[in-house]
Amino acid sequence: MLTKLSQIGEFGLIDLLKEYRGSRAGVIKGIGDDTAVVPLDAKRYLLLTTDMLMEGVHFKRTAPARVIGRKALACSISDIAAMGGLPRYAVVSLGVPGNLPWAFVRDVYKGMDALARQFGVAIVGGDTIKSEKIVINVALTGEVSKKDVVYRRGAREGDQIFVTGPLGKSLSTGRHLKFTPRVTEARYLIRHAKPTSMIDISDGLAADLGHILEESKVGAVLEENEIPRRAGAGLRQALYDGEDFELLFTVPRRKAAFLGRQKQFRFYPIGEIVPRAKGLLLKNKTGALAKIEPRGYTHF
Amino acid sequence: MLTKLSQIGEFGLIDLLKEYRGSRAGVIKGIGDDTAVVPLDAKRYLLLTTDMLMEGVHFKRTAPARVIGRKALACSISDIAAMGGLPRYAVVSLGVPGNLPWAFVRDVYKGMDALARQFGVAIVGGDTIKSEKIVINVALTGEVSKKDVVYRRGAREGDQIFVTGPLGKSLSTGRHLKFTPRVTEARYLIRHAKPTSMIDISDGLAADLGHILEESKVGAVLEENEIPRRAGAGLRQALYDGEDFELLFTVPRRKAAFLGRQKQFRFYPIGEIVPRAKGLLLKNKTGALAKIEPRGYTHF
Repeated sequence: MLTKLSQIGEFGLIDLLKEYRGSRAGVIKGIGDDTAVVPLDAKRYLLLTTDMLMEGVHFKRTAPARVIGRKALACSISDIAAMGGLPRYAVVSLGVPGNLPWAFVRDVYKGMDALARQFGVAIVGGDTIKSEKIVINVALTGEVSKKDVVYRRGAREGDQIFVTGPLGKSLSTGRHLKFTPRVTEARYLIRHAKPTSMIDISDGLAADLGHILEESKVGAVLEENEIPRRAGAGLRQALYDGEDFELLFTVPRRKAAFLGRQKQFRFYPIGEIVPRAKGLLLKNKTGALAKIEPRGYTHF
Repeated sequence: MLTKLSQIGEFGLIDLLKEYRGSRAGVIKGIGDDTAVVPLDAKRYLLLTTDMLMEGVHFKRTAPARVIGRKALACSISDIAAMGGLPRYAVVSLGVPGNLPWAFVRDVYKGMDALARQFGVAIVGGDTIKSEKIVINVALTGEVSKKDVVYRRGAREGDQIFVTGPLGKSLSTGRHLKFTPRVTEARYLIRHAKPTSMIDISDGLAADLGHILEESKVGAVLEENEIPRRAGAGLRQALYDGEDFELLFTVPRRKAAFLGRQKQFRFYPIGEIVPRAKGLLLKNKTGALAKIEPRGYTHF
C-alpha cells in the first residue's frame, strides 16, 4: 500500500527529505531550525525562511485582506526573531482567483507594507499567479552577528525556560492574525541574557519545546502553575494550541535572575532543563510530576 | 463596479503594487527585473527571486513528480542567470493534499535535488502545508559581482539583440518542464561580451523584449528571418509563446561580431535596438517593417 502523506505528518516529512538538499556547500544550518543560516560576511550570517499560507487552512477568505497580508509577513519575521536576527528583504508570491476584486490584493499588500515599514523590511520582489484558493508565500532574509545567533540546540541542564507572553487560544480568538513578532524582545535577550536556545511557538508550547529538547538532547520540567495563559485558555490550550508566536527560550540560571529583576519586558519563567532521560515532565500544583507528549497543533 | 484582477493582469498588478514595498532601505533594484538586487558585501550583490507553480496552471498532477520539482527550481535559477549571477540557496514551500502518496513529494524533492547539485544550489529550508491543489514555491538567492550584474535597463541604440536558443512551442512540447537554465551561457557572455541588458524569456519573446525596451527606453527591429524557431513552431509561436527560458540579451555591435565568431556556444542574432519612438518592429523577408505588440503569454 502506498503510504499517504497524512500518515507521515509534517515532521516526519522534514526528516525524510533531509536527503534531498542539493549541494551542501557553505551551509551553516539547513533544514531543522526556525531559519536557515548561511554565510554573509566576516561578521554576519544571512538567515533565510519561507512560509506558505493557504485559504481554508491558515485563514478564511472572509478575514480582512490587510490582516491576511500582515500575518503572512509576521510569521516569517517571527522566524527571524527566533534566531536573534533582524529581518531585511522579502519576496512575496501570491496565488489569487481571477475574479477576486482588485482591492483584495491591494489590501493584502497594504497589510504587509505597514508591518514591513515597522520592522525595516523591504519587499523587493514578487510573483503573482492564478489559483482557485488564495495562497501567499513570503520568503524573508535576515541578518545576525555570528556571535549573536541562537539555535534550538544549545539548551543545557539547569537552564531556565521562559516564554515572552501568555499562551493558548490564539487561533480561536483571532490573535494569530494580529500578533507582533518578538524582534525587539529577542534583541534585548541577546544583549542582556545570552539565550542558550530559542524558538517561536507556532506548533504549540509542548511541540516547540519538544524541538528544543530534541536538538539540545535534554529534557525539561514545566511548572503547570507558571505557564501564562491567554484569557479563557486552559492548561491544555496553553500546552497544545498552535500559532502563539511568542518566543520560547532558555537561559543560564544567573541570567534568569536578571530577567526577573529587569523592568523593560515581561518574561515568564515556566520551568527548567533537566537530563534527557527524564523527557518532558509537567509538575502540578501539588509537586507531582507527569510525563507529557511533545506533540501539538499540526499545520499539515 | 469592482475591478477584477483578470481585468488588470499580472503586469498592471506589479505596477499598482509598487506603492506597497515596505522600507526601501538598502535596495539596489526592487520589483521590475528578473530578480531583486540588494547589498551583500564590498564586491558583490545578493540576488533574490521567488516563483510559485500551481497544479492546473503550470503543470498537471499527471506530470512526473521529479519533473515538476525540477521545473520549480529551474525557473528560479533561470532568473538568477538573467542577472548574470550564480544561484546559491533555496527555500521551498510545498502545499500538498493529505491523501497524496508520500512518494510523490519525495520525487518532487528528488527532481529539485538533482538540478540543485548540478548548479551548486543548497536547499536550506522549507515549509510544507496542506492544500487541495499541489503548489510549489521556490525562493532562491544568488550572488553576482557588482561589476557583472546585468539589468533590463541598459540596452542602447545600435546594440544587437540575441537569444540563446530556438523559441516557441515550449509548453505544447513539454520542453518547459525539462529546460536547462542558461547559467553557463550567461557567465560566458559576461566575461566575453558585456551584455547591456538581459532577461529570461518566460512571457514570450515579444513580451520580454518589451520589458527590456520599456526599462531601457528604446525601440527594436526584429528580423523575422533570423528568429530561431523550435521544430514545428511558426513565427507567432516564436514571438508569443511563453516559457522558453532562453536568455534574451543585447550587446554593443563590436561584441556582436565576436559572438558570431566564437565556437563555444551558439548565440542567435535576431535584431537591433533603435530609438524609442520606433517602438517594436518586425522586418519581414522583403524588408517591409510592421509594428508588433509587446504582449505575450500571460501566467495570470
